[in-house]
Amino acid sequence: MDKNRLEAFSDGVMAIIITIMVLEFKVPHDTSWESLWNLWPVFLSYALSFVFVGLYWSSHHHLFHMAERVNNRILWSNMLGLFFLSFTPFATAWMGENTFNSQTVTLYAVILSLCVVSYLLLVHQLRALHGYDSKFSKTFKGYTKIFITISLNSLAALIAFFGYPRIAFILLILTSLAWFIPNHRYENHITDED
Amino acid sequence: MDKNRLEAFSDGVMAIIITIMVLEFKVPHDTSWESLWNLWPVFLSYALSFVFVGLYWSSHHHLFHMAERVNNRILWSNMLGLFFLSFTPFATAWMGENTFNSQTVTLYAVILSLCVVSYLLLVHQLRALHGYDSKFSKTFKGYTKIFITISLNSLAALIAFFGYPRIAFILLILTSLAWFIPNHRYENHITDED
Amino acid sequence: MDKNRLEAFSDGVMAIIITIMVLEFKVPHDTSWESLWNLWPVFLSYALSFVFVGLYWSSHHHLFHMAERVNNRILWSNMLGLFFLSFTPFATAWMGENTFNSQTVTLYAVILSLCVVSYLLLVHQLRALHGYDSKFSKTFKGYTKIFITISLNSLAALIAFFGYPRIAFILLILTSLAWFIPNHRYENHITDED
Amino acid sequence: MDKNRLEAFSDGVMAIIITIMVLEFKVPHDTSWESLWNLWPVFLSYALSFVFVGLYWSSHHHLFHMAERVNNRILWSNMLGLFFLSFTPFATAWMGENTFNSQTVTLYAVILSLCVVSYLLLVHQLRALHGYDSKFSKTFKGYTKIFITISLNSLAALIAFFGYPRIAFILLILTSLAWFIPNHRYENHITDED
Repeated sequence: MDKNRLEAFSDGVMAIIITIMVLEFKVPHDTSWESLWNLWPVFLSYALSFVFVGLYWSSHHHLFHMAERVNNRILWSNMLGLFFLSFTPFATAWMGENTFNSQTVTLYAVILSLCVVSYLLLVHQLRALHGYDSKFSKTFKGYTKIFITISLNSLAALIAFFGYPRIAFILLILTSLAWFIPNHRYENHITDED
Repeated sequence: MDKNRLEAFSDGVMAIIITIMVLEFKVPHDTSWESLWNLWPVFLSYALSFVFVGLYWSSHHHLFHMAERVNNRILWSNMLGLFFLSFTPFATAWMGENTFNSQTVTLYAVILSLCVVSYLLLVHQLRALHGYDSKFSKTFKGYTKIFITISLNSLAALIAFFGYPRIAFILLILTSLAWFIPNHRYENHITDED
Repeated sequence: MDKNRLEAFSDGVMAIIITIMVLEFKVPHDTSWESLWNLWPVFLSYALSFVFVGLYWSSHHHLFHMAERVNNRILWSNMLGLFFLSFTPFATAWMGENTFNSQTVTLYAVILSLCVVSYLLLVHQLRALHGYDSKFSKTFKGYTKIFITISLNSLAALIAFFGYPRIAFILLILTSLAWFIPNHRYENHITDED
Repeated sequence: MDKNRLEAFSDGVMAIIITIMVLEFKVPHDTSWESLWNLWPVFLSYALSFVFVGLYWSSHHHLFHMAERVNNRILWSNMLGLFFLSFTPFATAWMGENTFNSQTVTLYAVILSLCVVSYLLLVHQLRALHGYDSKFSKTFKGYTKIFITISLNSLAALIAFFGYPRIAFILLILTSLAWFIPNHRYENHITDED
């Protein structure tokens, strides 16, 4: 099975997800600066989702760059990830239109958690296929990061559920930003290889 | 004629179809858990359609991976498949918004059947081009699976038409799940080749 | 300049155009067969547009398969074609929702004509770049077909404008179907090359 | 890291942005020529945005054609550009629906400026990675053009803000058209290379 077409299909789906979210920006009914300003929760929700999908794409890109082959299980773990990811536009819109209301942030945090869980599953399937002492498995040291992200996103869901949605949203932002801290082992690998 | 661009165009169309379906999830007017829960028929319809389009893409991917060349007939058989597939978002939305009403499940089952019929046509054109005793034709043993799927999807259309839409929907789920049973001849081929 | 990325971008745009047209199928407000049947003008408009965009993509594919290089003029002739093509969803929806009213069919026929005119421009630029006695230019014998299509589509616009929109629509269908008659010189070329 | 997948993802996002803008053309409620004619501000806004995104894509294409490698900073500079670009459909629709009202043209000009600023950042990161006396950096002489564009787009934002939105819009058109003046150094490079 060909990993290139899996990447191409995933790229297509992720490119569409990241772009259709912007359709949730309903054009205001008047032209005042105030009505534009009132879109701030929609903007903020969109910005975080954009970064999240961007991070997902970027991690996916790194992962399949190292992968040498794929099988049916990987194909469907990937599909599961795209399935959960496809709910981010919905969850983003619900949250943005309701200015970070408790229920909406809870759902949003649950969706993000499920995306990361399915990413973990994808990594696991790739390791199983390549063998646990393959170059792929040895290079991949990202489990800790993934586990921490799942824990913090789930924690954010709980915090939002019990009535502190804005604190939960800030926690989600911080968790995403943590992914920008360079993963040195990763970078080393890439430098070695090229 | 170049099979790569045919694959790329088909990937694009299938990626968009699978993603725009999620636009049918209209954001609820309030933020209660109840109004979210009320979306369950939309969710269930979307989930089945996602799996169905995913299976279509996955089978398409396998098929063209084995194909060595394409011609105009194959191009247009493929277009016909994408045409029918492009109605899944509409049929999914109609069915989801009307909680598996008889007429809507009938239409949905008809659309799925037409997709599989056009897939059969595509396989047939590919076999005709490669020759019936080519490696392509010998490896491809999936006819039985395709015929059974067409029969069961058509049966589901009839069951829904005569007033049992929920039984029909369950049948459609089971038919889709059956595609996950590995097709050993297929897998063998891929192992041999790689 | 790299022709592959031009093809990839055009594929993306054409895949989206062909797919978003289906969003114009508004889900009926009730579940009766009658309200589904009432969508026939929307369906017929969509079907013709799907075939038209499919033909445009297929011709584009053949054209760039033979092309060896591209320049800025070709890039922008291509953009112009995509620009006019991007109006087909709008024109299709206006025509479908108003059951082939005179004005709407006129606009639709004008849009299709402009798409083909810009395609002619694209062919012309490609011939100019490759040289008029290059292999590309010698193989390309499709001018007659393009000129006839532009004439008939413009004629359809006039017929619709002067009050016979359904005759005009039938003419547009026939003009599109004529493209399925194999262009033997084309096919020969492809056979020689492979 | 692989530049091809970065290009593919960016192509996907830009293809979707350029195409979903056309969804803002709401089908008129009646079929008169007058109601079609009344869409002229929407049409004009769309046409400029189409050209702008086309120019962005074309410049992006040239840039990555010359680039030999990418890193994480480039990936995220690119994401930032796509983020700002993803607001063009919103800003275009707001401006078109309000016939070039002052506030809407201001926002539009600001969005275009931010897109070009992030493009500048992208160029800068690519030069830093390739080294300032690499072939990439020597060939790239486009800074002046980029600085002038940012200045003129920002000037347009100010002109629109202080009450002359139509003059601002004309300035934005002229600034975009200036990009069609061939950049000879660029062209020379490409000729040399091929």
